[in-house]
Amino acid sequence: MELLEQRILADGRLLPGGILKVDNFLNHQMDPMLLQAIAKEWKRLFDGEGVNKILTIEASGIAMAILVGLEFGCPVVFAKKSKTKNLSDSLYQTEVPSFTHGNTNTVVVSKAYLGPGDRVLLIDDFLATGAALIGLKALVEQAGATLVGAGAAIEKRFQGGGDKLREAGVRVESLARIVEMDDTGIKFG
Amino acid sequence: MELLEQRILADGRLLPGGILKVDNFLNHQMDPMLLQAIAKEWKRLFDGEGVNKILTIEASGIAMAILVGLEFGCPVVFAKKSKTKNLSDSLYQTEVPSFTHGNTNTVVVSKAYLGPGDRVLLIDDFLATGAALIGLKALVEQAGATLVGAGAAIEKRFQGGGDKLREAGVRVESLARIVEMDDTGIKFG
Repeated sequence: MELLEQRILADGRLLPGGILKVDNFLNHQMDPMLLQAIAKEWKRLFDGEGVNKILTIEASGIAMAILVGLEFGCPVVFAKKSKTKNLSDSLYQTEVPSFTHGNTNTVVVSKAYLGPGDRVLLIDDFLATGAALIGLKALVEQAGATLVGAGAAIEKRFQGGGDKLREAGVRVESLARIVEMDDTGIKFG
Repeated sequence: MELLEQRILADGRLLPGGILKVDNFLNHQMDPMLLQAIAKEWKRLFDGEGVNKILTIEASGIAMAILVGLEFGCPVVFAKKSKTKNLSDSLYQTEVPSFTHGNTNTVVVSKAYLGPGDRVLLIDDFLATGAALIGLKALVEQAGATLVGAGAAIEKRFQGGGDKLREAGVRVESLARIVEMDDTGIKFG
């Protein structure tokens, strides 16, 4: 998606350690018009697939997900980071390791909001190791719901998560795919 | 706002301890069409006030805030819960006690995304003790920005936060104001 790639080149910042900061338009300060354009692109890509639920993970996926939900006219659920590891009968839960923070979060979704009738589209801002989307996929499986696919705004292909998901049979549509980034710049492909 | 009050009566659940659960349409599973109607109502109420930035707090305020930002055509910033209490030169920060969880969060906003030129509208899903909005107000003051007002979807008036903010001179526009709730039901006013 040309619009997103150009914005990354204009406003993204590369930090040491393979970190791409896009917090001036995507995940701290957010540009609603850009996010709406992203949502409309996923609507175009997944149109006709019978999507009737959007699933994301707090916090930075929520803004995109609600705009995607508006396009599809369906409910949006966000998996919550739980403070407890205790199993609850009323929750689906899984563990999601964080690349950025070096810890693992227990994330949960109420059983009331995900079930066998759901055709689910996963949405997140970043796809790197794939941990977040793999966690969301596990929640969809626990619920007996159908996974239609996953939309990630920015995929860092060199971290392998996207290809791991594709090999597992998930349709992944990322809108800016970074194949290489270093001090000299960012290469899409 | 009739639409929101009716939805609370239809789908909200009262739990012991003064908790109103609206997690089937507002803050776990979310209805994007309802949230858009809420955003349009705030646009109507704060139109002509020169709002050029929306500020909310993660996680449950983000969905409403991005839709409000879309209405105003301006950036949306969400204050992040910080894992450290260490002061950073690049961040505004304040403490926000949580009524629901009984703890206190340090919340931060990058200085790059809030400044003297900003006319800020605060957005959140709930207004009870007012702690979250009071924290966001403190961040706006640290930045030297102008606080235009605050929009809360549901105000629990009997917890006093809204009136405290109004007495401090903040224009607060809540869309469903609960004056009483107990086993027998919810009273708006």
